[in-house]
Amino acid sequence: MPKLRVHNLAVSLDGFATGEGQSLEAPFGHAGGRLMQWFFPTSTFVGMSGHESEAVGAGTHGVDDAFASAWGVGVGAEIMGRRKFGPQTGPWVDDGWQGWWGDEPPFRTPVVVLTHHPHPDLTLGETTFHFREATPADALDYAFELAGGRDVRLGGGPTVVREFLEADLVDHLHVVVVPIVLGRGVRLWDGLEGLEERFDVETVASPSGVVHHVFTRKPR
Amino acid sequence: MPKLRVHNLAVSLDGFATGEGQSLEAPFGHAGGRLMQWFFPTSTFVGMSGHESEAVGAGTHGVDDAFASAWGVGVGAEIMGRRKFGPQTGPWVDDGWQGWWGDEPPFRTPVVVLTHHPHPDLTLGETTFHFREATPADALDYAFELAGGRDVRLGGGPTVVREFLEADLVDHLHVVVVPIVLGRGVRLWDGLEGLEERFDVETVASPSGVVHHVFTRKPR
Repeated sequence: MPKLRVHNLAVSLDGFATGEGQSLEAPFGHAGGRLMQWFFPTSTFVGMSGHESEAVGAGTHGVDDAFASAWGVGVGAEIMGRRKFGPQTGPWVDDGWQGWWGDEPPFRTPVVVLTHHPHPDLTLGETTFHFREATPADALDYAFELAGGRDVRLGGGPTVVREFLEADLVDHLHVVVVPIVLGRGVRLWDGLEGLEERFDVETVASPSGVVHHVFTRKPR
Repeated sequence: MPKLRVHNLAVSLDGFATGEGQSLEAPFGHAGGRLMQWFFPTSTFVGMSGHESEAVGAGTHGVDDAFASAWGVGVGAEIMGRRKFGPQTGPWVDDGWQGWWGDEPPFRTPVVVLTHHPHPDLTLGETTFHFREATPADALDYAFELAGGRDVRLGGGPTVVREFLEADLVDHLHVVVVPIVLGRGVRLWDGLEGLEERFDVETVASPSGVVHHVFTRKPR
């Protein structure tokens, strides 16, 4: 059975997955790049960010990259919240915004963007964004269809991940705890009391200072 | 210079150091024993709980015990909040309450109990409890005096630890993150945004599933 997977979701010690004050210039708000410092040096990120030519063989291959690199394996589609696609709110306007990722987004699969407002499909390179208003369960059905038998990745942000966890739709959850106290922003864990009862949990600390938690859904 | 140290302070993934609904029967509220499951099997706890006779050599000696056992080394006094001493609130009444620990509390040093209400000193075995109303800084001065040149341990609960962290009085902070989502209770990290800037942080995951974080105050 294809699975729904979350990868590389970073939270602070106090459980914030993004900071306060998100904007075009600050996609993580006041958190800046601090939640993703563990990720930037990895071979996976270096390859993903479109600098392949100068970066062949570059990037780390340690614990952090072992986890980071799993994000695309066996994945046939992604679901993301609208806030991951862009900083806008309300009805979409024709402002030329095509996401954060340039002409060749790293997904290279269909991507379902959850939004309450209509927006035409958008194809960039090997990625097509499908904008849809849907419940978590319906969005997942649609994404499984697009994935053609492969897994679906739930790409965030944290509010979307929380909604899918509340609906008990997530099979694999990789959370990275970064030893900082953000103080404000969007919390991941709210409303998820007892989450651990539904999952087996494995934990490993990385030399970089972050801690990787892997939650694997127990058999239903 | 003597230091102020926090040991074995357990928090959930969502940052709660105790659950909701604390009472005589449930000192950790709805969290029950879940925050301390890593601690109970350790040689340190087994020895501490007064079962020495049947427990010589009993208990684990792994990563969790290595951290747990550091709690008393070089410590000459403890500071604790009133809620750690007992579940009562308001003025003290003569109800015979002498703390949770029986005739020989495991501290075996002076203990300063922070309370807004007067209470006579109480000696049990090798431990004397001094009940005082004081600011964190004044309580620490008093405890250092009682400790006679040794370190002072800040014994909790979480609200007290947070107040001393806010006042920047803590030199060593050992926090154990337990991979559960408690959902409600008393949060440790609130109001401590940017705490990591004042500390060096080391992290290790234990085979028991918990993660030990050691915060060491940077030189002032």
